[in-house]
Amino acid sequence: MTSYWNDFPGMPESLEKVSGIIQASVASQNPVIAEGLISLFGGDGKLLRPGLLLIASEFGKPQKEDKQFKLAAALEMLHVATLIHDDVIDDSPLRRGLPAVHTRFGKQDAVLIGDYLLSRCFLIAAGYTSPEHAVALAQVISVICTMEIQQNIDRYRADTSIRHYFRKIMGKTAMLFSLACHVGASEAKAPKAVTERLRRAGYDIGMAFQIIDDILDYSGDQDVVRKTLGNDLKAGVVTLPLICALSLDKSGELARATSRESFPQADTEYIIGIVRSSGGIEAAREHAKRYTRRALTEISGLPRGKARDMLEKLTQHLLIRNY
Amino acid sequence: MTSYWNDFPGMPESLEKVSGIIQASVASQNPVIAEGLISLFGGDGKLLRPGLLLIASEFGKPQKEDKQFKLAAALEMLHVATLIHDDVIDDSPLRRGLPAVHTRFGKQDAVLIGDYLLSRCFLIAAGYTSPEHAVALAQVISVICTMEIQQNIDRYRADTSIRHYFRKIMGKTAMLFSLACHVGASEAKAPKAVTERLRRAGYDIGMAFQIIDDILDYSGDQDVVRKTLGNDLKAGVVTLPLICALSLDKSGELARATSRESFPQADTEYIIGIVRSSGGIEAAREHAKRYTRRALTEISGLPRGKARDMLEKLTQHLLIRNY
Repeated sequence: MTSYWNDFPGMPESLEKVSGIIQASVASQNPVIAEGLISLFGGDGKLLRPGLLLIASEFGKPQKEDKQFKLAAALEMLHVATLIHDDVIDDSPLRRGLPAVHTRFGKQDAVLIGDYLLSRCFLIAAGYTSPEHAVALAQVISVICTMEIQQNIDRYRADTSIRHYFRKIMGKTAMLFSLACHVGASEAKAPKAVTERLRRAGYDIGMAFQIIDDILDYSGDQDVVRKTLGNDLKAGVVTLPLICALSLDKSGELARATSRESFPQADTEYIIGIVRSSGGIEAAREHAKRYTRRALTEISGLPRGKARDMLEKLTQHLLIRNY
Repeated sequence: MTSYWNDFPGMPESLEKVSGIIQASVASQNPVIAEGLISLFGGDGKLLRPGLLLIASEFGKPQKEDKQFKLAAALEMLHVATLIHDDVIDDSPLRRGLPAVHTRFGKQDAVLIGDYLLSRCFLIAAGYTSPEHAVALAQVISVICTMEIQQNIDRYRADTSIRHYFRKIMGKTAMLFSLACHVGASEAKAPKAVTERLRRAGYDIGMAFQIIDDILDYSGDQDVVRKTLGNDLKAGVVTLPLICALSLDKSGELARATSRESFPQADTEYIIGIVRSSGGIEAAREHAKRYTRRALTEISGLPRGKARDMLEKLTQHLLIRNY
C-alpha cells in the first residue's frame, strides 16, 4: 500500500500507522461495511493526502497522542468517500486495481458506505482538530461536491475554457491538498509564515497532481494506472488534454467529434488518437510543469531539513509518475 | 412549512428562523444545488427534529447568538441529506409532495447534493457545538448509515424478529431524535438530570414516530402522506405491521406471499390487504402507544412549564398524526 513512499525516510512506517487507524476506524459489525472498506483501504492507494499532512506536520512540534496520524487518516477517509461516490456516479467498474465498491455491493450500499466513511472522517475531525479546522474540512467537502455537480452540468461540453477547468480542479482536488498541508503544519504549531507557505505549496501540488491524473486518462498504461483508460472521456468529462488539443487541432476534426451532438456517441479511441497526435498531452504537461515549478519555489522558501527535502522530492515525483 | 406547529406557542416563529438559516446555508452559486435544495426545504417538512431541539433548549438558559437555531438547522439538514440518499436508494419518486431530488436532477447529482448537505450540516456542528456534540452527531450518522445498509441486507426477509426491527429503527430514527433533545438541553446548560431525561424521552418519541411512519406505509391516505403507499413493502423493507401480521395470520397466506421466493414479485395490494385484515396495524399501534407512554412518563418528570407542556402535546400528537 505504501510502496509509493519507499524512498521517503520514515514515511512507510508512519503511513502504516495511518492505515492502522483507518482500519480500526472503519471496522464495523456490519459485514458489508467491514468487507467493502477494509479491502478498499488495503488496495494500492498512494496515501498522498495523509503523506502530505504528515510531512507538513514535521515543520512544527511533535504532537500529543499521535494526533497527526489520526488527522491524516481522516483525510484519506474523506478522499476515499468521494472516490466511492464518484465511482457510483461515473459507473466506473475498477478502483485501485480492484472492483469498485458499487460493483461488488451495488450502488445502494456504495452510497451508504460513502456516507458512513464521511461520518467517520468527521468524527475524527471533530474529535482531534481545532473547530476551525473541522469547519475548514467541511467547507472543502462542500466545494468538492459543488465542483462535482458542476462537472455533471458540464458533461459533453468540450467548448469549456482552461480557466473554468482550473476552477473545477481547484475545488475537486487542490483545495484538499492545500488543506492537508495547512492543517498538518498548523496543528503542529508551525510558524504562521511556514503554514501559509505550505498551504500555497499544497495548492500547487494538488493542481499539478490533478492535471497529471487527467493526462493519464489519455496517455496512461492501463495495467499501471489500474483505471479504465478514456474513462473521463467516455463519461463526457472534459479535461485539460482535450481542451488543449481542441485549440491545437486546426483540422476541426476534434471539434466536430466533440460537438454537443456527436460527443455522447463519439468513438473514444478516435478522440484519444487526435488528442495525442495534436500535441494536447504535451501542452497539458506544460501546465502541470508550471504548477510544479510554482510549488518548488514555495518549497525552497521553507526551513531546510528532512521535511523540506521530502516535499521537494514528492513534488518532482508528481511529473514522472505513471499512475 | 411549519403548519404542524401552529398550536405550539412561539414555535412557528422560531422554526421560521431555522428555515431562514437553512436557506442561507444551502444557498449556492451552483444552480442545481440552489434549486434542488431550496425547493426541498420549502416543501412540507414537519421540522420535527429542529422543533424537538428548540423545545429541549428551553429547559436551559437562553443562548448567545441564537446558537440553538443554528443547531436545529444542522439537524434538519442532516435529516434531509439522508432522505435524499434514501430516495436515490429506494428509487422513490416523491418526497414531501414534490418530485424527489433524483427525479428532478438525476441520481448522480442527488448523491452529490446529499453529500453537500451533509458537509453543510457538519460545518454548523463544528462551528457551533462543543466538540463532544459534533462527535456525537458524526457518530449518529455512522449508525444511520449502518442501519440503512442493514436494511438493504434484510430486504425481502419477512422472517425478521421484532427485536431486530427495533434495533434498526433505533439506529435509523430514534438516536437522532434523542440527540436532538440531548444537544438542545445540554448546549443550553440545562441541569444534567434534565438533559438525561430529555435524551431518554427523545429516544422514545423517535421510536414511536418511526413505528407510526411505518404504519402509514400500510394505512395512510396517499393524498395526505404525500408518499407512495406501500413504498417500503415494494422495496422489500419489512416493518412492524408486516412482522405483527405474520404472527397473527394463522392461515399462512401472508407467510407464503412473503417467502424469500415470492416476496420480490409479490402483489403489494394483496399483502397490504392481509396486513390490514389480520390486525397487524392495530398490533403495531400498540407498540407505538407503549413508546408514547414511556415518553410521557419521562416528560412528567421534567420541570413544569411551557416547554414541558409542548413536549407532552407533541408526543400525544404523534399517535394521531396521519402524515
